[in-house]
Amino acid sequence: METVVRDETENGKTEEQKGITKDASICGYDSLHRLLSASLEPHVFQEVSRLLLGLNCGRALDPIVLPKLATSFSKEHDFDLQAFCFHADKELLREPRMVRVGLIQNSIALPTTAPFLDQKRAILQKIKPIIDAAGASSVNILCLQEAWIMPFVFCTREKRWCEFAEPVDGESTQFLQDLARKYNMVIVSPILERDVNHGETLWNTAVIIGNHGNIIGKHRKNHIPRVGDFNESTYYMEGNTGHPVFETAYGKIAVNICYGRHHPLNWLAFGLNGAEIVFNPSATVGELSEPMWPIEARNAAIANSYFVGSINRVGTEIFPNPFTSGDGKPQHADFGHFYGSSYFSAPDASCTPSLSRYKDGLMIADMDLNLCRQLKDKWGFRMTARYELYADMLARYVKPDFEPQLITDPLLKKRP
Amino acid sequence: METVVRDETENGKTEEQKGITKDASICGYDSLHRLLSASLEPHVFQEVSRLLLGLNCGRALDPIVLPKLATSFSKEHDFDLQAFCFHADKELLREPRMVRVGLIQNSIALPTTAPFLDQKRAILQKIKPIIDAAGASSVNILCLQEAWIMPFVFCTREKRWCEFAEPVDGESTQFLQDLARKYNMVIVSPILERDVNHGETLWNTAVIIGNHGNIIGKHRKNHIPRVGDFNESTYYMEGNTGHPVFETAYGKIAVNICYGRHHPLNWLAFGLNGAEIVFNPSATVGELSEPMWPIEARNAAIANSYFVGSINRVGTEIFPNPFTSGDGKPQHADFGHFYGSSYFSAPDASCTPSLSRYKDGLMIADMDLNLCRQLKDKWGFRMTARYELYADMLARYVKPDFEPQLITDPLLKKRP
Repeated sequence: METVVRDETENGKTEEQKGITKDASICGYDSLHRLLSASLEPHVFQEVSRLLLGLNCGRALDPIVLPKLATSFSKEHDFDLQAFCFHADKELLREPRMVRVGLIQNSIALPTTAPFLDQKRAILQKIKPIIDAAGASSVNILCLQEAWIMPFVFCTREKRWCEFAEPVDGESTQFLQDLARKYNMVIVSPILERDVNHGETLWNTAVIIGNHGNIIGKHRKNHIPRVGDFNESTYYMEGNTGHPVFETAYGKIAVNICYGRHHPLNWLAFGLNGAEIVFNPSATVGELSEPMWPIEARNAAIANSYFVGSINRVGTEIFPNPFTSGDGKPQHADFGHFYGSSYFSAPDASCTPSLSRYKDGLMIADMDLNLCRQLKDKWGFRMTARYELYADMLARYVKPDFEPQLITDPLLKKRP
Repeated sequence: METVVRDETENGKTEEQKGITKDASICGYDSLHRLLSASLEPHVFQEVSRLLLGLNCGRALDPIVLPKLATSFSKEHDFDLQAFCFHADKELLREPRMVRVGLIQNSIALPTTAPFLDQKRAILQKIKPIIDAAGASSVNILCLQEAWIMPFVFCTREKRWCEFAEPVDGESTQFLQDLARKYNMVIVSPILERDVNHGETLWNTAVIIGNHGNIIGKHRKNHIPRVGDFNESTYYMEGNTGHPVFETAYGKIAVNICYGRHHPLNWLAFGLNGAEIVFNPSATVGELSEPMWPIEARNAAIANSYFVGSINRVGTEIFPNPFTSGDGKPQHADFGHFYGSSYFSAPDASCTPSLSRYKDGLMIADMDLNLCRQLKDKWGFRMTARYELYADMLARYVKPDFEPQLITDPLLKKRP
């Protein structure tokens, strides 16, 4: 396995070095998995993988051999391409329900100073061969990253970027409808939505395109961040579409957009509505969230007995006008490094390695959706969840006069 | 740092080797952290730690220098002793609220064939120097492991072990009350409870002992497993004490007992009731749960903006009568290996390394409870949680005629 090590300079430029040596600078390693693989003896790496990737029986996830057409796209257009197969038991009364699922992460294609139309078109042009590689690999369901058709502009608080918003049946959807039809593929397309019928309201929305190119429906981001440079609440409001699960030709899917991954109740609601795969298209940066990235999605997959596909955009996006970040530091022009690292989690606590922290990429996984019910039967989380306790608790909590269940030590001397 | 490598033989005996060599058998390494520390170059280990331990700004948790008395207990009685300090910002309007918290993991002291009274007394005798080490270290709040006064017998389905159950003010509580008084320490004591006033009902209960030796209250395990050899539902029922938070001299604490850690709603409810530290005293074995162990508690700490102390018992317990495990395999006499690995998680996504997978241990952490509110202010999870959506969702879900929010592709050809 080849490991890419980069030295990142202060202003976000990167310089590639191939291979890793024990004394190489650690900045800019390609992925944790490749770093450990290159640094550990094989038998140590195997045990570390058992714990970190949840390979409980010591069985590594089988890599999938993809068609040459797919790998040649990857080489020609320089994107990371990885593919794994999750394990599941063979059942006696149900056939396996194998689905091949893909996640795409990408950087923007042109500087943010380029004309908006050029920026959009260049992203369409750049994403096309990655989707073609998914199509050539017979991917059944494909998910793109959050607001994939534009830079992640919300750090700027400038409203001119709102021009990138599109209606659900707009240009980017039409582009993907053709590809969905061509490849008989369900495509989840997260966009900045302009809701013309409701007075030009903006939403952060995932459009679900069926394998015949039809629009099955949409979901609007439920939880909007106000943290760091994620000034998204300046641009759009909390979604009004509930927690829909979309029954597609290949399984029941849902979309937990970005910041919603910090909310266990959001994950739960998609599970209660029957999701078998939940996508988490995201845009998040290193300093803020990188250690949380391998935790939250895996926890959701375990707790809710479904698969999760986590996507983060990649690269550093530099904006024309510098801005401050509410941290007392000098103005600057970028959001920080989007660290990619897209990956899949399974309900049995296993997960794939992650895509590159620096490159565009396509992660593919084969999964037997029967595994969801197998884990429900094994662990019994739904049966033992006592939802009525929590329905009651939350009904009380949302009232302004809620009093917590607090038992105070009677010997406690209150401080004055 | 010294790494202990063991070769474990089939019948559970271990053989210690000090140090690690690159070609040593990987079976029986002491902890993932020590394994990586011994196997990776320091600069690689630092970056791996940043991701795995959530050391976001690259600052390792500072180790705490403990009094010699504590370290001498550790050497004399051969238990793992580790201590770290979590980071928090200094505030301008509040003083830091520093608390020193301890977690104890231990194996049983005598074979399960010994007379019951001898077994109990031997555990009391064995745990005493570990608690003394906590006392000598000025630990403020200490938590013991689940059902710490007995072997974890529930794999056997034999009711004779019920004799180990004690009332809340029974022998083990009295033993700990003396030590709580002596060391001015809050102690959380998870026991198998015999509820005499309710017809000798059994519960899985945590007793909260105040720093003056008084009993502040109790909490009974909310979620009971039916998985693998965890036949606990044969012995006791779902707890009836809600989600109490105990306001002690040193902070607001709660107890999520064992299997409750798989239930995000259980973690949530303790948070909504105001917990600043939630303990998760557990008993869990390698094959079943080891890859989930570093995920669920950390997710809970992040999502609920509180500290979590995770405890797992350690060692292999062999029972007199062989039993089957519902997996078609031959009868056997042990539950599997309890892998220890107790650790702390913080609301900022950082965590300590884990205690040994093989030895008794005491993990100590200093934490400024102000960090909980700092993370709430930073991330805003409570503000953005939209609890009213989920109160409504759960109220609908618990009704027998609940219909999931499912949007079916109209072009989907239903299979016959």
